[in-house]
Amino acid sequence: MNSAWWLHTARAADARIHREALERQQQLTKPAGSLGALEQVAVQLAALQGRLKPSVEQVWISVFAADHGIVAEGVSPYPQEVTAQMVHNFVNGGAAISVLARRLQARLEVVDLGTATPLGDLPGVQHVRIAAGTRSFIDAPAMSFEQGTQALQAGRDSVLRAKASGTELFIGGEMGIGNTTSATALACASLACAVVDLAGPGTGLDAAGVTHKVQVIERALKAHAGLPDEPLQRLFCYGGFEVAALVGAYLACAQEGIVALVDGFICSVAALLAVQLNPSIRPWLLFAHNGAEPGHRHVLAALEAQPLLQLGLRLGEGSGAALAVPLLRLACDLHGQMATFAEAAVADRPA
Amino acid sequence: MNSAWWLHTARAADARIHREALERQQQLTKPAGSLGALEQVAVQLAALQGRLKPSVEQVWISVFAADHGIVAEGVSPYPQEVTAQMVHNFVNGGAAISVLARRLQARLEVVDLGTATPLGDLPGVQHVRIAAGTRSFIDAPAMSFEQGTQALQAGRDSVLRAKASGTELFIGGEMGIGNTTSATALACASLACAVVDLAGPGTGLDAAGVTHKVQVIERALKAHAGLPDEPLQRLFCYGGFEVAALVGAYLACAQEGIVALVDGFICSVAALLAVQLNPSIRPWLLFAHNGAEPGHRHVLAALEAQPLLQLGLRLGEGSGAALAVPLLRLACDLHGQMATFAEAAVADRPA
Repeated sequence: MNSAWWLHTARAADARIHREALERQQQLTKPAGSLGALEQVAVQLAALQGRLKPSVEQVWISVFAADHGIVAEGVSPYPQEVTAQMVHNFVNGGAAISVLARRLQARLEVVDLGTATPLGDLPGVQHVRIAAGTRSFIDAPAMSFEQGTQALQAGRDSVLRAKASGTELFIGGEMGIGNTTSATALACASLACAVVDLAGPGTGLDAAGVTHKVQVIERALKAHAGLPDEPLQRLFCYGGFEVAALVGAYLACAQEGIVALVDGFICSVAALLAVQLNPSIRPWLLFAHNGAEPGHRHVLAALEAQPLLQLGLRLGEGSGAALAVPLLRLACDLHGQMATFAEAAVADRPA
Repeated sequence: MNSAWWLHTARAADARIHREALERQQQLTKPAGSLGALEQVAVQLAALQGRLKPSVEQVWISVFAADHGIVAEGVSPYPQEVTAQMVHNFVNGGAAISVLARRLQARLEVVDLGTATPLGDLPGVQHVRIAAGTRSFIDAPAMSFEQGTQALQAGRDSVLRAKASGTELFIGGEMGIGNTTSATALACASLACAVVDLAGPGTGLDAAGVTHKVQVIERALKAHAGLPDEPLQRLFCYGGFEVAALVGAYLACAQEGIVALVDGFICSVAALLAVQLNPSIRPWLLFAHNGAEPGHRHVLAALEAQPLLQLGLRLGEGSGAALAVPLLRLACDLHGQMATFAEAAVADRPA
């Protein structure tokens, strides 16, 4: 086993290409800065990919699915069977992420890390069943160290498959009934925030449901008050298998030199844990959107992330990241294909 | 001549399809409301297009170009020749909107309403030269009534060409050195706002330049203090030919039953004038983005518009609207192609 691979330093961005890409942006036939965030993201992609004209045509989406023991506390309006049902929906092409992947011509893989309802040998699914869901973290860690590192490695394995297929942009998605509860507990423990400030309706709790969810998380945080202040310990205590896999995937992306586009609240919490564990990876993470879950903006702020979209999304599956892919492609097109003032014989403003 | 065509009532949206589209959204395999603004826009597109599964594959972009007499007051850092130079750049494929139209497989037409530098018989351009730019509105109306209605009709003619080619979504763009000054004057006169609250750097004025621009606009507003409070009078007093063409285009879209996607500050001011002139058209206007020009959010607020993007854009040309097209297409795909709970045998939450 490749011990502590998650601490290996991320690949460095290319400083020379970064300068050249910034210079190119100044020469294109538009007022300097007039493409706003799209200019910055094109320059960042150039520096990370080490080429003056970056590309995100080859997109890989891994959706990690797993169930959560904490659901026994009544924190979700949906029954736990939905996790496995949605895995079927992903591979049958009827889920949001399936529709989006089709249009984007992205490669979509689904990784089963442990659903409560067994999936059998469902074709189109990577089966890495660690257990039939995590234990409830209400009074014990959700997973063992061995289970946790297995989930991290599963995320890394997805990235290695993505790399082998020529991926230019990696999207991680998640499916797991109860996983906003897991992510909220992780965010509260990681940011020392009050639960009431971060907890939200998730897939659709009413006000009473949110109040109950807050109480469940507060009870769990109290039960684990003695937990060492260390990202991996937090991750394995509160995390789902799919959250740990996302952490592993983001770490591996940065180490393997693949830009990762982070989806919503749960993915952003995984990104936060990954950055706390290994700060060198931060430049490799782009953030797709600021979602509807109230905890999301706190996590984004802690990461100093400036997401591209704000559409009130709260679906997960990687859908918000998929929705931002066309903007990245268009940013690359503009950066790579627009004429310069000299090429087009257009007068620039006086210096 | 088709007198006062601009006052004809817009086509009505389909109320039955609207209800059916709302119902369909509730049945798709996702938490209700979890696709945020994309659900609303898909339902709106369905009702406007009169089909349960709307489509915006066929996109038409008309970029209207014209020069502005007010530039003599020193309100832009760019020389006036740039307007004509950029028209060449549009048809040669090097401008931002050219690059975006290519990727979107959108039809791009450029309409010359009067550049200061003559374009001759440039292929790929619709030549509707009303004059070699407007007069300066510093102390006289920018255009005559005849010129104004000619510009309105030019916008309508673009929409009629778009309709004949099967367009499902119309984007208007603009190019005209000095046209943020024209649009700011129009917005101030239309919203009774102070010039300092709306005026901004446009293509890139420094602070001193903005201060001068404010003084120029204030002077012009004072000179025209006796102007009747009537949208067409305002439009012809302060507007550019390209702004009037946009007004005509938005009016015609709503009358002809084509959804219009409104770009940035200048286009939004044109949309405001069009709605003030004929309020029945409002439902046909979608708003693409909230741009960097400070006046934009005031105009959007007056229109009760909720734009899809906020990327700090301030380029014009229709570029911000083009950037939002993939989101609309993905919203249509999700609405039309996702499985229902029944189709996918996924458990919905208990009612």
